Amino acid sequence: MPTPQHRLADAVVTVLDRDGHPLAHTDVVVAQQRHEFLFGNIGFDLVGLANEDEPARAEVSALADLWLDVFNAATLPFYWGTFEPVRGAPATDRLLRAARWFADRGVAVKGHPLAWHTVGAPWLLDLTTDEIADVQDARIRREVADFAGVIDTWDVINEVVIMPVFDKEPNGLTRLAWDRGRIPTIRLAFDAARQTNPSATLLLNDFDMSTAYECLIEGVLEAGIRVDALGLQSHMHQGYWGEEKTLAILDRFARFGLPLHLTETTLLSGELMPPHIEDLNDHQVASWPSTPEGEARQADEVERHYRTLVGHPAVQAATYWGITDDGAWLGAPGGLVRADGTPKPAYDALRALVKDEWWLAPTTVRTSAAGCLPVRGFRGTYSVDGVPFELAGDREVVVRLGG
Amino acid sequence: MPTPQHRLADAVVTVLDRDGHPLAHTDVVVAQQRHEFLFGNIGFDLVGLANEDEPARAEVSALADLWLDVFNAATLPFYWGTFEPVRGAPATDRLLRAARWFADRGVAVKGHPLAWHTVGAPWLLDLTTDEIADVQDARIRREVADFAGVIDTWDVINEVVIMPVFDKEPNGLTRLAWDRGRIPTIRLAFDAARQTNPSATLLLNDFDMSTAYECLIEGVLEAGIRVDALGLQSHMHQGYWGEEKTLAILDRFARFGLPLHLTETTLLSGELMPPHIEDLNDHQVASWPSTPEGEARQADEVERHYRTLVGHPAVQAATYWGITDDGAWLGAPGGLVRADGTPKPAYDALRALVKDEWWLAPTTVRTSAAGCLPVRGFRGTYSVDGVPFELAGDREVVVRLGG
Repeated sequence: MPTPQHRLADAVVTVLDRDGHPLAHTDVVVAQQRHEFLFGNIGFDLVGLANEDEPARAEVSALADLWLDVFNAATLPFYWGTFEPVRGAPATDRLLRAARWFADRGVAVKGHPLAWHTVGAPWLLDLTTDEIADVQDARIRREVADFAGVIDTWDVINEVVIMPVFDKEPNGLTRLAWDRGRIPTIRLAFDAARQTNPSATLLLNDFDMSTAYECLIEGVLEAGIRVDALGLQSHMHQGYWGEEKTLAILDRFARFGLPLHLTETTLLSGELMPPHIEDLNDHQVASWPSTPEGEARQADEVERHYRTLVGHPAVQAATYWGITDDGAWLGAPGGLVRADGTPKPAYDALRALVKDEWWLAPTTVRTSAAGCLPVRGFRGTYSVDGVPFELAGDREVVVRLGG
Repeated sequence: MPTPQHRLADAVVTVLDRDGHPLAHTDVVVAQQRHEFLFGNIGFDLVGLANEDEPARAEVSALADLWLDVFNAATLPFYWGTFEPVRGAPATDRLLRAARWFADRGVAVKGHPLAWHTVGAPWLLDLTTDEIADVQDARIRREVADFAGVIDTWDVINEVVIMPVFDKEPNGLTRLAWDRGRIPTIRLAFDAARQTNPSATLLLNDFDMSTAYECLIEGVLEAGIRVDALGLQSHMHQGYWGEEKTLAILDRFARFGLPLHLTETTLLSGELMPPHIEDLNDHQVASWPSTPEGEARQADEVERHYRTLVGHPAVQAATYWGITDDGAWLGAPGGLVRADGTPKPAYDALRALVKDEWWLAPTTVRTSAAGCLPVRGFRGTYSVDGVPFELAGDREVVVRLGG
């Protein structure tokens, strides 16, 4: 497999001793600490652990270890209906503890989502459209402010393509988007988030990979709304897209010149969902087991999919949607870890990419007479004898070893 | 069937004699001359007749009579590839004669389309993207200027939802829309048309009735591009939409507050196209006959469809796509007249609506002592003893009979 050149950096590192002199002809240990590319997963299953809900369960702790061994970016749940089921009583403290738990472990945290028609706050139904606009605006400002510094990346608004014509259940956001239009609704949400945290990374996110989302994005950008990254969902409950379709989608959305975040990737290790299902939520089954054949297929597809994503220069993040089958969305076997806590082959396959093939393990290298050594690897954070430095491009880096 | 109240006007007409005195207690003949609602059809088949291509063929003349007996709006073909197959030699004279032929007979004429990726001018392929933009701009300005006063309604740009990702054949417009984006391409086309004929009625037209077209429209309107009417195609080669789907579509697009023109309606009087065909152009069959059962179904569906369209307040025009099966698009039996020139039941059904149920035939009415008589009917042009007047709302009208 060719290594995607655009992910690599090639630097000459000059190592200085504690006095600032080149450290010549000395063995040092070079190691990678972190990927620049965001390998994400949902952190939903670890919110309880971070909040010490109950005496630490060994299996959750083991799950956390598996999670942290592969991923460097967590998506946390801000569904309004579960975050603030009773108006005025948001779960801020609980989510803040979860976000800090990840941040303390070097994980970038994203909040998902600030505005959406599904899992909406039930009390919106009693409000007028103008009131919905006002509380949506206030809700965004509150969360973005409360979490600033811990969560600085947000899926600001979710699935706007379908929002005004969504007819599965009455909700406030559909009413707002129908009455005011998609773009004014997006503008409301982005303005609230941007004004509250100007340096945040703000995403538009959608599952609709058709021309509809392209058209929406064009309109949003033409309307002067600044979007920092485009969120592309990729729940593949009905089957792996394959490289050709994936690349075609990436090319179509890369056209806007914005970074692409594959925000929600699912690949099943069991039976696929029938192709006639349009809204994945409509598929409810009593039992949906992970199978040996399914796990082999999932491992193959996960590897191929991540190679495709990492291989495309526009992709900046790939978030897998699920660490464990235990409590997974729709009961689908889309996790990387079985319900019993053992890793599936897909977990191992992804770990082999992220922490082996695309990773520089601790390596002893001898510096030159000038104290130099070459480092070539995936962009990210590295260290020389434990002193970190950024490998971000083809340039010279100076690392001064500590006392 | 309830009469759609929003189509009706109710006026008191005061009839004056040639000296300006109320014409009391006198029998006059009131008659409708024209519908305000645009009942359109393509005029492609009559371009030759208008240009006297050959000694007037009786069958074309009969077809023209059938056409003119029902329709008051003609769509004429301005496909760049056939209008100007050789750069610098446009078919302006020929189309101008055709447009005048219709206009002379009281028919409103629309040009279709000024920009499209299909049936494109082949010589665009040799140009750079910037050159394509320039010649597209110039082409629009030329046609809109050359036909002003005869054609003041244009499908300015066609099928932009798919335009940048259209992959059936290389063409200049797809390249332009991919490089510059959909909205800038639309702006280019609308600016050229609007600046050339500020009072023209300019349409955006598409076959994509999904959320994609909604999103595109939102973006176009947010970008400040003035669109006078939204063109909705409705080629139903794969089956009649039915009232529920049709109404849902009309409601979704009526949301933008713009008049809706159903620009391209087809209903077949033969076998339907299989549902798996995505691009209708992909379905090529050797023979596609009109059948008695198909004709009965088509008549029923045409009547139901027109009742739905006329019944929706946002619809301003409904253009049927085809008068005759002779030479019809794809060879499909979508015409209202058979290839042998005899009207199908669908023709009779539509005529019965347009010129009977929704029409005021010449009627003798006696004026009151004050010279008044009530007229209630579909909005449009009427006459009293041959003197025309507009029935456009619920108001008083004065008609002075001539010398």
